[in-house]
Amino acid sequence: MKDDKGHSMQPEDTPELRELYAGFEKLSLMPLWTQLGDLMPVHPKSNAVPHVWKWADLLPLAEKSGELVPVGRGGERRALGLANPGLAPNAYISPTLWAAIQYLGPRETAPEHRHSQNAFRFVVEGEGVWTVVDGDPVRMSRGDLLLTPGWRFHGHHNDTDQPMAWIDGLDIPFSRQNDVGFFEFGSDRVTDYATPNFSRGERLWAYPGLRPLSGLQDTVSSPLAAFRWEFTDRALTEQLLLEDEGQPATFGPGHAGIRYVNPTTGGDVMPTIRCEFHRLREGTETPVRQEVGSTVFQVFEGRGAVVLNGELRKLEKGDMFVAPSWIPWSLQAETQFDLFRFSDAPIMERLGFMRTKVAGQ
Amino acid sequence: MKDDKGHSMQPEDTPELRELYAGFEKLSLMPLWTQLGDLMPVHPKSNAVPHVWKWADLLPLAEKSGELVPVGRGGERRALGLANPGLAPNAYISPTLWAAIQYLGPRETAPEHRHSQNAFRFVVEGEGVWTVVDGDPVRMSRGDLLLTPGWRFHGHHNDTDQPMAWIDGLDIPFSRQNDVGFFEFGSDRVTDYATPNFSRGERLWAYPGLRPLSGLQDTVSSPLAAFRWEFTDRALTEQLLLEDEGQPATFGPGHAGIRYVNPTTGGDVMPTIRCEFHRLREGTETPVRQEVGSTVFQVFEGRGAVVLNGELRKLEKGDMFVAPSWIPWSLQAETQFDLFRFSDAPIMERLGFMRTKVAGQ
Amino acid sequence: MKDDKGHSMQPEDTPELRELYAGFEKLSLMPLWTQLGDLMPVHPKSNAVPHVWKWADLLPLAEKSGELVPVGRGGERRALGLANPGLAPNAYISPTLWAAIQYLGPRETAPEHRHSQNAFRFVVEGEGVWTVVDGDPVRMSRGDLLLTPGWRFHGHHNDTDQPMAWIDGLDIPFSRQNDVGFFEFGSDRVTDYATPNFSRGERLWAYPGLRPLSGLQDTVSSPLAAFRWEFTDRALTEQLLLEDEGQPATFGPGHAGIRYVNPTTGGDVMPTIRCEFHRLREGTETPVRQEVGSTVFQVFEGRGAVVLNGELRKLEKGDMFVAPSWIPWSLQAETQFDLFRFSDAPIMERLGFMRTKVAGQ
Amino acid sequence: MKDDKGHSMQPEDTPELRELYAGFEKLSLMPLWTQLGDLMPVHPKSNAVPHVWKWADLLPLAEKSGELVPVGRGGERRALGLANPGLAPNAYISPTLWAAIQYLGPRETAPEHRHSQNAFRFVVEGEGVWTVVDGDPVRMSRGDLLLTPGWRFHGHHNDTDQPMAWIDGLDIPFSRQNDVGFFEFGSDRVTDYATPNFSRGERLWAYPGLRPLSGLQDTVSSPLAAFRWEFTDRALTEQLLLEDEGQPATFGPGHAGIRYVNPTTGGDVMPTIRCEFHRLREGTETPVRQEVGSTVFQVFEGRGAVVLNGELRKLEKGDMFVAPSWIPWSLQAETQFDLFRFSDAPIMERLGFMRTKVAGQ
Repeated sequence: MKDDKGHSMQPEDTPELRELYAGFEKLSLMPLWTQLGDLMPVHPKSNAVPHVWKWADLLPLAEKSGELVPVGRGGERRALGLANPGLAPNAYISPTLWAAIQYLGPRETAPEHRHSQNAFRFVVEGEGVWTVVDGDPVRMSRGDLLLTPGWRFHGHHNDTDQPMAWIDGLDIPFSRQNDVGFFEFGSDRVTDYATPNFSRGERLWAYPGLRPLSGLQDTVSSPLAAFRWEFTDRALTEQLLLEDEGQPATFGPGHAGIRYVNPTTGGDVMPTIRCEFHRLREGTETPVRQEVGSTVFQVFEGRGAVVLNGELRKLEKGDMFVAPSWIPWSLQAETQFDLFRFSDAPIMERLGFMRTKVAGQ
Repeated sequence: MKDDKGHSMQPEDTPELRELYAGFEKLSLMPLWTQLGDLMPVHPKSNAVPHVWKWADLLPLAEKSGELVPVGRGGERRALGLANPGLAPNAYISPTLWAAIQYLGPRETAPEHRHSQNAFRFVVEGEGVWTVVDGDPVRMSRGDLLLTPGWRFHGHHNDTDQPMAWIDGLDIPFSRQNDVGFFEFGSDRVTDYATPNFSRGERLWAYPGLRPLSGLQDTVSSPLAAFRWEFTDRALTEQLLLEDEGQPATFGPGHAGIRYVNPTTGGDVMPTIRCEFHRLREGTETPVRQEVGSTVFQVFEGRGAVVLNGELRKLEKGDMFVAPSWIPWSLQAETQFDLFRFSDAPIMERLGFMRTKVAGQ
Repeated sequence: MKDDKGHSMQPEDTPELRELYAGFEKLSLMPLWTQLGDLMPVHPKSNAVPHVWKWADLLPLAEKSGELVPVGRGGERRALGLANPGLAPNAYISPTLWAAIQYLGPRETAPEHRHSQNAFRFVVEGEGVWTVVDGDPVRMSRGDLLLTPGWRFHGHHNDTDQPMAWIDGLDIPFSRQNDVGFFEFGSDRVTDYATPNFSRGERLWAYPGLRPLSGLQDTVSSPLAAFRWEFTDRALTEQLLLEDEGQPATFGPGHAGIRYVNPTTGGDVMPTIRCEFHRLREGTETPVRQEVGSTVFQVFEGRGAVVLNGELRKLEKGDMFVAPSWIPWSLQAETQFDLFRFSDAPIMERLGFMRTKVAGQ
Repeated sequence: MKDDKGHSMQPEDTPELRELYAGFEKLSLMPLWTQLGDLMPVHPKSNAVPHVWKWADLLPLAEKSGELVPVGRGGERRALGLANPGLAPNAYISPTLWAAIQYLGPRETAPEHRHSQNAFRFVVEGEGVWTVVDGDPVRMSRGDLLLTPGWRFHGHHNDTDQPMAWIDGLDIPFSRQNDVGFFEFGSDRVTDYATPNFSRGERLWAYPGLRPLSGLQDTVSSPLAAFRWEFTDRALTEQLLLEDEGQPATFGPGHAGIRYVNPTTGGDVMPTIRCEFHRLREGTETPVRQEVGSTVFQVFEGRGAVVLNGELRKLEKGDMFVAPSWIPWSLQAETQFDLFRFSDAPIMERLGFMRTKVAGQ
């Protein structure tokens, strides 16, 4: 590690020093002074790289997997992980997050299991699949966010003659690296093949500002497992209308946004993953932003671009990108531009590591 | 104060003692030993008494007030306080709570003001009035709960040719006794006579599990000022349907209930007042309950009764009753029975004084 | 209630109006418009008045009580309440707080009981009494703060041939008015006559920044029941020394201060009562301060004055004064000036009512 | 991944499948079904292994480094990381934690810097070094725990003619893997060479249950940077004496323990690292324990053993061991046995991942 003037005090390379270093190795010791710069960089320098995946690439491969790869016990899920090129050979989209496209053929069932890892699904297109979370069947439709927080049994089944694909997000890398995960198999089929429009969790919890008297205990993750597009869309629409009326409602000029929250606390839906939805008016450019922690976006609708670490990348429906920690990014909207976002911000905030830098602020 | 055996050690009444007591008085002192039993009873023994007010009595007097009493600056509100007979000469329904029926004639305006006291309105019947809270017009319709938390400007206006009456609840007694209140006059008219179906607060906040990115700071009271009957009714209906399906959803058998909450925290809507809505199936009787703190109910729909300190009182639409601290009460439903409830429970819980006793538990 | 221009819209006094008002009375109703100004003043206007009690008055009366009044079951305590002249006939020092001088003769015992009310003792002079809290004997010595939080059994006994007097503080008025209190008799004698220098609570908890692994559950009130003068004095001494060294350490120039806290949370020692100790350098004058809620001071050492609602009152060792809500006060130190303080600030803060105004800020 | 019956549904290996997999690789995708078992094990299976380092090995190598390796800008610290054999080539003692022995020769200075990483030092023997934290010189003596929470400038200097060694603990692995770290050089020398017995932080904060009025804002990490052996020892001694008296005071039979805490919250001293001290009576054996997250112990005094994943290892003064996540361990005391412990438990608890399993419970 070099200081501002390029100095770095290091020991002279002598036979005695080499002998010392050999002694270290024998006793499972390692000097800090030879590796400090990599261990403790001046600012976060992720091995992960910024990267864009095109939906036009992802979907055909998922479809092809549908032909060639069965879904069932053992493999558990027909899911393609978006593997950050900087994190090979791991299929991690960032050091903390996993993102995948999952594909379920007509009438297929993905068997039930549970794990400590927190998971969500976001549906960029399609419908017809139900995810069954602790026995509660949850419809998955376009624009919906569906949760399966840690240690809840869940499986999926496709009730139609059409395949369906969606996005999974989990904290698998974080869990793997920090050794926190438990896993348990459940039923080989889902426990309930009913296809109700609304899950029991929604019927209990999906009312603004109302809490059931049977649910007064706060929970680590949201007891509401489905966040419907109807509400998300309406909330964003109203923010922009309120902005038109001169009211303070948007996150920034022309930039509406909501965070999905746990109704028992008002905080993030799960302890490791933040989920948000952003809508930009046509022509809006957001200021360049840097944040500690990694974030992933998926375009839900519209056309635009991201400037990711200085490089402009065009984006269309379904396209996804990751911005690793402290990598600058900004969004540009060619049309009205809708994006789903998730990140590891709750980890950073709960552990006191969050920092944010916004150009011009 | 007598102990279990009826003993109480008290000083002998002598001239010397009388002289001592006179000395106390001169110096603004008072002995504890002569008054302990009243100051520190074995369990809460409120000066307030359980009491029932009939809507059939309240409404005509409110209407008559509408004829004889103007509404305007100085008097501020045409509100009739429900005065607990045990707390005369104060118009307090309990030691902490104020409840009143407020009446606004056709086209009338109640001028704007603000105060530290937290307030809500609940509408048992009627429509056509808008309450304007910090400039945001909020429609008041049957079954709605409307908030005006402390220190927000508010006024009301009736946009129709029909009068309207509703219920106000405030923490006036608590604020008066503990000397916490500030008051400020605002506009003599309301600042906005618009009559939108939905307030700006609702347009920003009334989506289940969604939080605007412009509202990430938690607030002491709910930023959502209107809780619509449509949602309350649907939540209660679903709880009873879920119970029919064998799911854990209700507060007790045949007893559905919701608490109105601050969406930024999941906690009570205001720091001193809890608001809830209860629905009993026909034939349901709730177990006898005693709680620290006082509570008020108003029948919204249906017929039934309350057994209040052992005495059964029939109840119909609009009827109200108060149960002071530790007074036992239970509800009985002759028909489906809907009740709005408010209480001072947040005070008791935040200060560590809450205790609950339920018969058979 | 009159507005800024002295206007107040009130109804005309007619026979019909009188009939209406009679109807109100019959049905336990009361109009808001006739009493608003008193119920909701422009700023807190307490019935309580600022008042000073002189130790030179208090102590002789306590001693005289020692001669004439026994201590034992029923009367429970030989305590003289400081009765705010504005709150007669109640012996309340403020709307929320009770303060008393308690006196225990040589070898006397005050029997055990427990109650919901939170209590503390502060010792301005003397020693030789142990208060036994849930069976744990706690030595009471000059300068110590001793807690008996709600619902813990406690009694006192004097182990010497000298009488001893000290100050009690409780939330009796708050508890009485809000009907939260339970009371239970305990042993007629204290359960343990041991006279250890340190209570078991201290032996477990009185180490800076250390928490026993057997005490990881947070508690509503402090598990540490004794705060020794040795530490208080040292903390204040060091703050002033640090100020001399140019370090930020004091509350204001020449003004050191500590708050007694619950070590499991870092917050107030009990949910309704805040306790602090203040030390002013000779010559220091504090800025005029107004706060929501009431506060009581006792001079521990030194000479000075309080300017209470504009009136200067000289103060010496043992003298006490109360500042009701929003009454301005400031302190002046003729010598180094040590004062113990307690207040109801936790109530105000937990319920969102706190406001503070400091002259020149 | 195989299910309970050893089944695992995997696709047939065909040319078409290989082509599909090649397509994945080209587009930075990776199938979940081929790697699930490693990503999501049935219970935590850390790459890290349980390991013991002997002080008799560590100290001579540190001393030798003192001869051969300078300390200064660039290398920054003469610290030897305890490198978990399972995590090579990283010098991580566990996936989240860094532990090192640091060595400072007579009159040497380790220059100032700051970083996001949270750090502490624990002194198993020696004295004479001061660590200067944000300009506040903190004496380091045997048995003391010293903190340098994230982003505080710190350097060390040896004020004596004797060298000194101690233990450093940091969250470097966690910070590196999750890309949260910032680093900044400070003064090449420490900013204050004073050698006071007590730091300014101690003079402000090291009083049981007292909080300076100048420090009422809660802080993420402890404002108290030094936890002295005198208090730790006394707390542990008293717990065992209380146990002798039949009082509930110890963590388990014959097992005293304290947690070091942030006095502003009562919680862990830093958001990622928990620090504790344990004392076992001679002959005590603790029940076998498994926990999510990793933990490190250092023997401070006495002789005993750890049974680590079933293998008994003798331990003496200065010896250290690591127990990775879910690895079972128990302690055995041949003499009175004192151990310092640190772990990543705050991470696990704040993110909802903590689980504990104790044999026989």
